[in-house]
Amino acid sequence: MIKNIKPVFTQECALDPAQPVVVGVSGGGDSLCLLDILSKSGYPLVVACLNHSLRPEAASEVLMVQQIASALGAVFVSKTVDTKQFALQSGLSIEAAARQLRYRFLFTQAVKWEAQAVAVGHTADDQAETVLMHLLRGAGLAGLKGMEFRSWLTSWSTEIPLVRPLLNIWHREVLEYCAQHNLTPVQDATNQSPDYFRNRLRLEIIPYLEQFQPNIRQHLVRLASLLALDYQLLQNQVDTVWDALVMKQGHGYVAFNRAEFITQPIAIQRHLIRKAMLAQRTGLQDIEFEMIERARSCLESPTGHRTCDLGAGLQLRVEQEAAWVIVRDIELPGGGWPAVPTDQAVELPVPGSTSLQDGWMLQAVLYAAGDSVYQAARDDQDPYQAWFDAEMIPLPLYIRRRQPGDRIQPQGMGGKRVKISDLMINQKLPYRSRGTWPLICAGGEIIWVPACRQSQFAWPGESTRRLLQLQLIRPCEALDVD
Amino acid sequence: MIKNIKPVFTQECALDPAQPVVVGVSGGGDSLCLLDILSKSGYPLVVACLNHSLRPEAASEVLMVQQIASALGAVFVSKTVDTKQFALQSGLSIEAAARQLRYRFLFTQAVKWEAQAVAVGHTADDQAETVLMHLLRGAGLAGLKGMEFRSWLTSWSTEIPLVRPLLNIWHREVLEYCAQHNLTPVQDATNQSPDYFRNRLRLEIIPYLEQFQPNIRQHLVRLASLLALDYQLLQNQVDTVWDALVMKQGHGYVAFNRAEFITQPIAIQRHLIRKAMLAQRTGLQDIEFEMIERARSCLESPTGHRTCDLGAGLQLRVEQEAAWVIVRDIELPGGGWPAVPTDQAVELPVPGSTSLQDGWMLQAVLYAAGDSVYQAARDDQDPYQAWFDAEMIPLPLYIRRRQPGDRIQPQGMGGKRVKISDLMINQKLPYRSRGTWPLICAGGEIIWVPACRQSQFAWPGESTRRLLQLQLIRPCEALDVD
Repeated sequence: MIKNIKPVFTQECALDPAQPVVVGVSGGGDSLCLLDILSKSGYPLVVACLNHSLRPEAASEVLMVQQIASALGAVFVSKTVDTKQFALQSGLSIEAAARQLRYRFLFTQAVKWEAQAVAVGHTADDQAETVLMHLLRGAGLAGLKGMEFRSWLTSWSTEIPLVRPLLNIWHREVLEYCAQHNLTPVQDATNQSPDYFRNRLRLEIIPYLEQFQPNIRQHLVRLASLLALDYQLLQNQVDTVWDALVMKQGHGYVAFNRAEFITQPIAIQRHLIRKAMLAQRTGLQDIEFEMIERARSCLESPTGHRTCDLGAGLQLRVEQEAAWVIVRDIELPGGGWPAVPTDQAVELPVPGSTSLQDGWMLQAVLYAAGDSVYQAARDDQDPYQAWFDAEMIPLPLYIRRRQPGDRIQPQGMGGKRVKISDLMINQKLPYRSRGTWPLICAGGEIIWVPACRQSQFAWPGESTRRLLQLQLIRPCEALDVD
Repeated sequence: MIKNIKPVFTQECALDPAQPVVVGVSGGGDSLCLLDILSKSGYPLVVACLNHSLRPEAASEVLMVQQIASALGAVFVSKTVDTKQFALQSGLSIEAAARQLRYRFLFTQAVKWEAQAVAVGHTADDQAETVLMHLLRGAGLAGLKGMEFRSWLTSWSTEIPLVRPLLNIWHREVLEYCAQHNLTPVQDATNQSPDYFRNRLRLEIIPYLEQFQPNIRQHLVRLASLLALDYQLLQNQVDTVWDALVMKQGHGYVAFNRAEFITQPIAIQRHLIRKAMLAQRTGLQDIEFEMIERARSCLESPTGHRTCDLGAGLQLRVEQEAAWVIVRDIELPGGGWPAVPTDQAVELPVPGSTSLQDGWMLQAVLYAAGDSVYQAARDDQDPYQAWFDAEMIPLPLYIRRRQPGDRIQPQGMGGKRVKISDLMINQKLPYRSRGTWPLICAGGEIIWVPACRQSQFAWPGESTRRLLQLQLIRPCEALDVD
């Protein structure tokens, strides 16, 4: 038995010896060793073996794994996939495509067998390679911290963890274990191919660096374990800020309070953007530094509404108050504004009321124009109300979204025709609200832009006998009405 | 002019254009470029050029630098040192010895000329090499964050910073600048020598890695800038914990609350130990991971008092309540315990009082043994007081430290002779307090170990006519007495 491995199962990997584990077994030394130790430690096992169809001998290797699983009394599942085909279709490299297919298979099996975890045989050598690979690729802390004993590949499962019990065991120790326990690993020829960058790391770059620093592998592994803890500390800090700054979060979007975001230390800003991207694209790998910096400068720029592409199908949308990290072109949730639900105009009965989105309501009330009502109407400064001479208004009233070229003749502006779009900008309506903001129309004229301006059309005068009051009712007020 | 360099002077390096700067100039391209730009930016300059006596042409190079300085109207200072001799004496490598001598020279000049900073010509290439060197050497975050635009080499000065204005400029750009401005750098042959590890990094390892990742230098520099900010965030967190956990701090020592220390996250513990070591050995480089882990396991071990070597002339001393990071064999400050100042016995006058260290006091009072006083004496459970039959006590009383073999016959133990050292352990006196704890002696006998036990000697009986009360008075009580 490899020294001190059992506590790694129960502590670092948090495995319960009574619950089933899906083990990914390729037939190589690492996975055979992992399988053997887990089995001898009494875990109920589902041995999962994927044939990537990349090598002719793969089918016989699956058979071999099946025999080993059967000898151990473990459940065996396998599947054959066409990796090259998938790589072509998805535009991924062969390595990345194989990885995708493998984890999809493993987690599908884990769900099916109600496993507590998926276990894979990554060793300390893999960890050293991973850290160095991230370093060469230009990663920051999140990459250099390497792999963890227990983590969540949230693109595959948010509930079932991936565990790597051999992460502090050297491949050399694994091979010794295999020799001692009569396990005969298959020789995967692709592990020697210089076509894969990871192989070049293992076969060329690390041995080269070992000439200068014989302990380079150990140093890389230790670096990962050090940085993983530092990263955790930072994440705790980032989580606290996240909770304070996130205004809205949902499927495909998260919105920060922009003003507070840009006052954060730069390192916190970077981690927040990374976290927001991961929240939309779970399992997203290799978030580029340039993306994050582009997002930061977009966020900090004092100019108006703007969108910046973050890659991976994500966008940053910056509004006056909020900065949204979103899945590209997603319909964002309302900002709590009044909105006309569709492109279709809807009638506002007089008297009567019509519901808008998010609990807002428009209401029309008729009054006989006694002196007091008339005076109230003329004095009314509340932009949520508008008063008209009811007899001058051609019914029915319609509520609709704005259309290109829409204009209004605002009361008190000497008959000037103003573009609705300019009016909305001047009145500082939130950018996203403008397209669906309710406009009240009568006889082909826009008579009121609620919360902005009313038209000079049908302005009540001394001869007015009946008054029409239109009112935009806030969600909380609407509740009172009910 | 190199693009955007002036804001680096005033922002990243926080230089005041009106205050003098000492510039370290070797005559190489980097330092010549730095000198030229600083001079053209109007800084009052002291050009400091050290002849390391490592190459025959060095003297003529110093002359060249002097001419350049003179042409710029800058003050010029130089010195010749015997680097090889110093390396031999100090046991340092040639590289390390040269570095020491150089910074000693630069900061001596900076103090002399009341400079605001020492400026050196490290470039982005140096930064990339530094990060990679730390990686190979097995550093953590503190090493990988590389050099900073502005930092304090506190072993040279805690007040005058070292600034590196060219830290985001590539050496290639420096050479272009030199060519454009008719600056002719000296060619330092040692820069090509494979005897120095940094040269091998620059000439062999980085070019090798560039085959796989052409942007490796850029990535390393970016990594440093990312990690520097992450490190700063972590340090803020560590500083907060530090303030909460440090019980005592002074020249050569710092003490943590041990119980709270070991409940901290491991990453915080590591950073605290590192910070404590740096607090005693400012400028300490390359704190080994193994040292920090040894300190951690020593701190966490539940056994009693112990000491562990931390290297660099530092030790960790773990007591029941405190964990001390100290300069080896330093006299630690008192723990607020009563202590006899020297190895000499001092008299305790009867009646009268004698001061101990840290405001403690011993006091002797005589009472006529009326019934009430006698009863009070017999009932007294306060270990800070002891009562004796005054007429059975041979005067004078002495207060002294313990000596090997000291014993006492504690009252109520049937005449058993107990070692003072065992008594102190049983009574849980703090380890460091024991050697100087006051013992009260009369006629060659130890009659009282304050706060522990009194001897059965001269125990007051019914025939006692006069009572001697001895009292250990706490610092705050002693204040009341005054």
